[in-house]
Parts: sequence; C-alpha cells; structure tokens
Amino acid sequence: MKKPHQKPEAAAPVLTIDQMHAFLDEVFPQLGGKDNRAFIVEDISPMAARVRMAYHNRQLRPGGTISGPAMFTLADLSIYIAILGQIGPVGHCVTTSLNINFLAKPEPRDLIAYCHVLKIGKRLAIAEVSLFSEGSEDLVAHATGTYSIPSP
Amino acid sequence: MKKPHQKPEAAAPVLTIDQMHAFLDEVFPQLGGKDNRAFIVEDISPMAARVRMAYHNRQLRPGGTISGPAMFTLADLSIYIAILGQIGPVGHCVTTSLNINFLAKPEPRDLIAYCHVLKIGKRLAIAEVSLFSEGSEDLVAHATGTYSIPSP
Amino acid sequence: MKKPHQKPEAAAPVLTIDQMHAFLDEVFPQLGGKDNRAFIVEDISPMAARVRMAYHNRQLRPGGTISGPAMFTLADLSIYIAILGQIGPVGHCVTTSLNINFLAKPEPRDLIAYCHVLKIGKRLAIAEVSLFSEGSEDLVAHATGTYSIPSP
Amino acid sequence: MKKPHQKPEAAAPVLTIDQMHAFLDEVFPQLGGKDNRAFIVEDISPMAARVRMAYHNRQLRPGGTISGPAMFTLADLSIYIAILGQIGPVGHCVTTSLNINFLAKPEPRDLIAYCHVLKIGKRLAIAEVSLFSEGSEDLVAHATGTYSIPSP
Repeated sequence: MKKPHQKPEAAAPVLTIDQMHAFLDEVFPQLGGKDNRAFIVEDISPMAARVRMAYHNRQLRPGGTISGPAMFTLADLSIYIAILGQIGPVGHCVTTSLNINFLAKPEPRDLIAYCHVLKIGKRLAIAEVSLFSEGSEDLVAHATGTYSIPSP
Repeated sequence: MKKPHQKPEAAAPVLTIDQMHAFLDEVFPQLGGKDNRAFIVEDISPMAARVRMAYHNRQLRPGGTISGPAMFTLADLSIYIAILGQIGPVGHCVTTSLNINFLAKPEPRDLIAYCHVLKIGKRLAIAEVSLFSEGSEDLVAHATGTYSIPSP
Repeated sequence: MKKPHQKPEAAAPVLTIDQMHAFLDEVFPQLGGKDNRAFIVEDISPMAARVRMAYHNRQLRPGGTISGPAMFTLADLSIYIAILGQIGPVGHCVTTSLNINFLAKPEPRDLIAYCHVLKIGKRLAIAEVSLFSEGSEDLVAHATGTYSIPSP
Repeated sequence: MKKPHQKPEAAAPVLTIDQMHAFLDEVFPQLGGKDNRAFIVEDISPMAARVRMAYHNRQLRPGGTISGPAMFTLADLSIYIAILGQIGPVGHCVTTSLNINFLAKPEPRDLIAYCHVLKIGKRLAIAEVSLFSEGSEDLVAHATGTYSIPSP
C-alpha cells in the first residue's frame, strides 16, 4: 500500500552528517562531544534522518530495559536533526509538543531512530519518528513532534 | 532510508473488503449503509488499510475547507478498520486516545486515509494514519491512535 | 493541592455569551443556528469557557454511548470558544493539533466541556478540556489542543 | 468555573511521602538515592502528587533554559508517583504514552510538577501534569500520560 509521493519540497538536505555533528557538538556539548558522542547521526536524506543512541547503563530501568526519558531524548533530537538537515542550523528552533507511544521494552542495546518530516511550514515543522533496537525489527516506540521555526 | 522489515506478525488480514463493509453497515448504520456509504474501504493489507471519505458539503468549514471533526472521524475509523482487518470483527474495540496534527487545509474533495498498525498487543493496538486529498501529494493531517482490545 | 495562581494575562473576556453565539451562528451555520443550536455556550470566564453539546441520537454508537467524533467536536469547539473569548472573533484561528483521551463511555445525555486556556502566545494558543455527562461527576474524556493564532 | 466534584474513588493515598521516597530510592537508584535526590516528592494527596526536580546544570540548554528531556522526565515521574500513591507500589506499571506541550522556556531553577490522576481503570491510568518554575506563576509545560496497570 503506497502513499502518494512526497512533494518536490523534499529538496536535498543542506547539511552533511559531518556538518551536523559539528553543529551539535557546539550547541549541545553535554551530549558528549566528538570523542564520546551519545547520539550519532547515521543518515540525512530529504525530509528524513536516522540517528543512533549509543547504549549506556545509565539509561537502564528495572527489568533491564531502556528508560522512557532516554527514548524521548532520542525521538526529540532526531526530529531536530531531520528538520535542521532541511532548513540549516538555525538557532531557536524549539520543540513545542511531542507525543510518544511506548510499544515494547527495548533491550539494553543501541536504539535507532528513523525520522520523517511531515511538513515544514513557515512557523511549525512536524515529524514522526520510529525507534528500533539495533538488529531488531520490533518497533519499540513511535513519536510525533512539532518544532517552532523562528521567523527569518 | 528504509526502516527494518515488519515482523512476521503482519499476517494476512482476516476480513475482505466486502466483509468489512458488511460489518460496518451493521454496526454503524448511521454511516450511510451500503447504498450511500460515507466511508469506503479501498484496501485491507497486512497491518494496513486505505479508506476513502466521500466528500459532502456538510463537512465544509469557512474558506472552503473540510472540518477538523470530519478528518478526525476518518482517521479514527480507518484505524478501527485496519485493526479489525487483522483481528476480526470483535465487539467492544474502542478508541482510548487519538492524537491528530492538521497540516494543511484540504480542498472540498474526497479524503483518503492510509493507516498502518504499529502494534497489536494483548490489550492495546496502536496505529498511525496519513490523510491526503484525492489526487494530491500533500499530507493534510496525520494521526496516531490507540484502541483497547477486549480480553478474549 | 493548589497550583500557582494564573498570571494577570487572564484578563476579562472580550466577548459575551450572546456575542459568541452570534459569531458562531454566522461562521458555522451548519451547527444549527440560533433556533436549533447543537452547542450552547454556558460560560465565558477569563481564559476559560463552558460549552454544552445537546444530545442527539445521531451521536449514538453501539452500546448506547456517544461517538468519539462527537466528543472530539465538542472538545475542539470549546477550545475555539475559550480562545476567542479572550482574543476576540479573529478569523483564521485554526486547530493545529488535538490530543484526546477517552476515559469512560458517556450515556446518551448532554455533554458539558470545561475548557481552560493554558497559554495564549503570539503564534499559538493551547488549552485543555474536560468532558462530563450532564449531572455526572465522571470524567468521560480529556483533551489538549493547540490553535494557530493569525498574525495581526 | 468549577468542574464537577471528583468521585469518591479519590480515596486516601496508600503511601506516605517517606514510603514513596524509600520505594523510588530502591527502584530507581540512578535518580540519586536518599542523600542526593534529583526528584523530591512534596505532596501526595487523593489522586494527586506534587514533585520537585532539583535544578542541576546538566539540564541546561542553549539560552540558559532547561532541556525538554528533563521536563519530560519530571512529568513522567510525577505521573508514576501520583498513580502509585493511589494503588501502592506495584511493579511493572509502565508508561504507554505521553503527550507534552512546552509553553515557556523555564529559567535555571527547580521545577515543580502538579499531577492529577484523571482515571485509574483496570488496565490503564491517565493523569495530567502542569510544570512551573519555582516561585513563578507561569506554566512552562503541560503533559498528559497513560500508564499500563498490571493485572492483579
């Protein structure tokens, strides 16, 4: 069952993976910096991004699963990356809302976020994200988030 | 950017389009019945369904666009159809929550919902839906919804 | 357990109930007009509104309960009324997202929405709504919605 | 504008603040333990809880504001505390979904969550949370979350 093709607004991204990493290292130094990145951008495509969250035992919760806030962080950041990949490293692009559904308890492994931007408007950008454990075909969480785009 | 394959739980649907229409006509007679269906099931695939909402001018809002409640109705019903296509016509399968984002004002035309079930658990089923105007590649709304599955 | 007081931005509403009804009758004639209103504004207070949805059997679903789309319509409209009560009858104030949780199956009676605006910003207004059946203390649904505010 | 009274199901909480702290210290040792709690339960009332998140500079984001994931963590945890205050320290009570709206950028200070449980059902519990900066009357975020309740 195929959805209609994306519109031509899905232009080529304006940032490479290296440029995105450099920008994130500068803006969010608490995420580890280039020698110890907690979040690795694996792909930036038109209106999309794939981001890996490296497993760390501080993400653990009882039962050996990864915490909800860690999954939220990955979902939120991957939306930010997918949007900025498309519009460039604008400052003041902030989350206005995020809705997340937790579907399965992820094992203690890296998590991979697949983010697709649904719309980039003049004021708001909206994206959806699917989270998978590395090497697994089970969806562990799904989120939809909205970012406020600053006026030019 | 491809997501991991769906798991084998995506078994063949258990209802055909005709069976689904017959079930809906019986359970929701107010949706028009077989001679005047407001919602037409166009496809039932593994963990997915496509549903068309026939345009009617009572759906109109100022500016010639389709009302939010009409889009909500289509999103909610398409999730119901996609889930029941997979688990059969169980009674008492009810919406517990629905989150909808309105992305563009649809023109006064049929709307098409593409619904994908994200998970069918023992208690809950979760799905996401994209709404398009007929013949358009613009996403007009996106929703995520959860249904409660009755105990067997 | 008391929350902090609302800020002084909770100024007096700028529309009376009669003015709001007149505006709604003009903009949404399909809601019944003054002789047959489906939705009755019962109160407009600072950053709040109470709206009644008159029961009609077209809202019924199997089991004698009121449909989700009817509850969505009430939630969405009550947010619109609460916001416009505060900022006046501006055109082009549209829902950008709505998240609704269905908590109990309402009986076939009038539903009452209690809406509180959480924030009116320059671009977005956000509100939360609680729906009760008339004469009941059971919450039947709760929603949070965001409207886009047009630029002045 | 007063909502209907809460139903009598709002029975007295079954855990005191000290019991809740002891339970959290045991289950979530990574939250700091009794000598260094990151989250302090300030009140447990019928169907409600107030929880403080102590400010720490690792929560900071560019512009001197507190990160979205930190606010998510507080919202999620306060719902957990409010529910467990009512049903006791059951294991395996997990978030199934959370919807959060960010309304203002909080200053680098403690954040206080006011959580009200909307419903405790047999399978699901739903609550809403308002986050304020200490000493401020500005709402900085609002969330609605659902937890899965384990079968007895």
